[in-house]
Amino acid sequence: MPARDAAAPPDQPWSRRRLRSANERLLLDRLRDLGAASRAQLARETGLSKPTVSSALAALETAGLVREVGTRAPERGRTAVLYAPDPAAGYALGVDIGRGWLRVAVVDLDGTVVARADVRNRARASAAMAELVVATARQVIGNSGVDPAEVVHGVVGTPGVYDEERRRVRFAMHLPGWGRAGLFDRMREELGVPLEVHNDANLAALGEYTYGVGAGSRLFAYILIGTGLGMGVVGEGRLFTGAHGLAGEIGFLPWPGRSKPERLEDAVSGEAVVEAARRFGMDGQLTAKAVFDAARRGDRAAVRAVELEGERIAHTVAAAAAVLDPDLVVLGGGVGHSVDLLLGPVREHLRALTPLRPRLAPSRLGEDAVLLGAVATALGTARDLVFERRAGEG
Amino acid sequence: MPARDAAAPPDQPWSRRRLRSANERLLLDRLRDLGAASRAQLARETGLSKPTVSSALAALETAGLVREVGTRAPERGRTAVLYAPDPAAGYALGVDIGRGWLRVAVVDLDGTVVARADVRNRARASAAMAELVVATARQVIGNSGVDPAEVVHGVVGTPGVYDEERRRVRFAMHLPGWGRAGLFDRMREELGVPLEVHNDANLAALGEYTYGVGAGSRLFAYILIGTGLGMGVVGEGRLFTGAHGLAGEIGFLPWPGRSKPERLEDAVSGEAVVEAARRFGMDGQLTAKAVFDAARRGDRAAVRAVELEGERIAHTVAAAAAVLDPDLVVLGGGVGHSVDLLLGPVREHLRALTPLRPRLAPSRLGEDAVLLGAVATALGTARDLVFERRAGEG
Repeated sequence: MPARDAAAPPDQPWSRRRLRSANERLLLDRLRDLGAASRAQLARETGLSKPTVSSALAALETAGLVREVGTRAPERGRTAVLYAPDPAAGYALGVDIGRGWLRVAVVDLDGTVVARADVRNRARASAAMAELVVATARQVIGNSGVDPAEVVHGVVGTPGVYDEERRRVRFAMHLPGWGRAGLFDRMREELGVPLEVHNDANLAALGEYTYGVGAGSRLFAYILIGTGLGMGVVGEGRLFTGAHGLAGEIGFLPWPGRSKPERLEDAVSGEAVVEAARRFGMDGQLTAKAVFDAARRGDRAAVRAVELEGERIAHTVAAAAAVLDPDLVVLGGGVGHSVDLLLGPVREHLRALTPLRPRLAPSRLGEDAVLLGAVATALGTARDLVFERRAGEG
Repeated sequence: MPARDAAAPPDQPWSRRRLRSANERLLLDRLRDLGAASRAQLARETGLSKPTVSSALAALETAGLVREVGTRAPERGRTAVLYAPDPAAGYALGVDIGRGWLRVAVVDLDGTVVARADVRNRARASAAMAELVVATARQVIGNSGVDPAEVVHGVVGTPGVYDEERRRVRFAMHLPGWGRAGLFDRMREELGVPLEVHNDANLAALGEYTYGVGAGSRLFAYILIGTGLGMGVVGEGRLFTGAHGLAGEIGFLPWPGRSKPERLEDAVSGEAVVEAARRFGMDGQLTAKAVFDAARRGDRAAVRAVELEGERIAHTVAAAAAVLDPDLVVLGGGVGHSVDLLLGPVREHLRALTPLRPRLAPSRLGEDAVLLGAVATALGTARDLVFERRAGEG
């Protein structure tokens, strides 16, 4: 029954080499998804013959892609050797560029973080920010003890939308100069790692889908509320990006406020919370966090500011519900982090606004959502690249 | 090279019968998509061997699925017989239930309308409306001269969203009693045709994608403005329906109007146009069409009402743009029909509302969009059913 072994796409010319490589990939993916397994188990589960499994595993082991991780003694029969992917076959880089913080992580092919840094982003010009990214990434790779050449792929999250053609970020309202062309090309060059650039809210949504509360959702929206306002949409495990990668740019939703601010983003962001609290009577050096803390203590001005924030977020959720019909809306980001206080007001205003009420949940990954989404995305490509390189050598 | 012939999914047990059937389907689809062709041409294009093509075509002809449609005399070589799908192998039914009009069409497998009726919907109770649908469909099938048993599948467009589990339509605001459970089950029974029920705006979007201005769009939104307000979204040829089939229920978008009406649907519908015109000073028995006609003649009250309508539609487009990022927004339905007057005001307000401006276009199918979408959807299933029945007999 050759059909069972033929994992190669049927529209490509049949070749023994391609078939062998497809079988190796099939086994590697199986080990990655479901954990260590023996030869016999793999043969049973994949439908490949035992000799095929044996030779494919041998090739994977020689290529450094798979290793023995122990043995299992069944009740009857011989002790079986267990195989698992070798996590050290390659590494991936994840970067989250936020106005407040820059976060960088290096992960092995299992997705385990081998080094990480979170640094305050005090750069206020794009060149300084790009330098900070490169310097921090170098430092993290250095700290990981990994040969830089083994870091095969990186993914960067940033506010705005990367325009591949013009080599620049658009709509990054809160990062001055960040729209300059060629900025990411320079970072790629200096770092020597291929860097994909993605919208931060999109990555946060993927992070929350892969490691957080989004798992198993048919269609969920992640609303990132912090310095800016963004939304990532994941449908059946895939990012929904729209026709030009601008889906979820909800900072541009028409906003029913009578006067200023004109832009929903400016009415929902952390700064808006601070402004509202001040308007309601709070004094001093305020941050959004300070306002939420004061609201927790029952400060009336702070409570009113949080209430207003809840109303505005409800507006966002109602718009997303009417257009997209998600089964879950996750609130995350710096402000979304104070979701314990916000969920009540959001739910209440939602009841008044619309009969469409998706389940609301706080982000499980909190401030790590963008970074973990970057890591998850980078891992997918890194695993492909490592397989192609190493299996190709064999 | 058996791999080229194996159109059967690789994870199913190989079988000669399945393979034969897959080859027949491949040829039938090829003839459907690209037009009549000869044996030699089909062999060249599909990669199947000439004997395989010959026996598959013979089987398709015997089953009544394919017929000879002529010959082609090449410059050199023998005259070749041309084959095409037999459009009379089966029929499909499309129904558009609107508050103002009920439209029904029967089409052959080529999609050619063989009979059609458009009747005023004066029914104001759900039972009467269901009766009207059944009676009209029977009449249209009768007029077509087609054996009712040959009408293998039907698709019905209605405002609201059909809840498969509860056997009823939800959110059909403008059709009184239309939410009653079992209504469509009764229609199915009385008509003796399987009926799928879909949201009207979704079908209009599919119609506009299949036969109208949406063709080739990566992601487009069709906004249906008439008695109600709805939106259908088509991404890469597939309907985007959300987690519960409620995507595009934009009648529920939060609406920035300060007072009444509270619901965007009621602020944008045809009735809202009439109310605005009256408020601005128009008298008499008004319809939305009369207001648009008056605006065309320069009536000031009518012009102001149309202007206001444009502003509200711009709000809808801006919300869809921020959440979805379509490359095209089509305006259709009874009010969308007067798009020549609306496009200017919509574009102008859009400029003030958002930097995200998808291309705007009027519907090409006009009032037929829902019906043609229903027909296109029914055709897909009807072709499958007819193939399964007839090819299965062979």
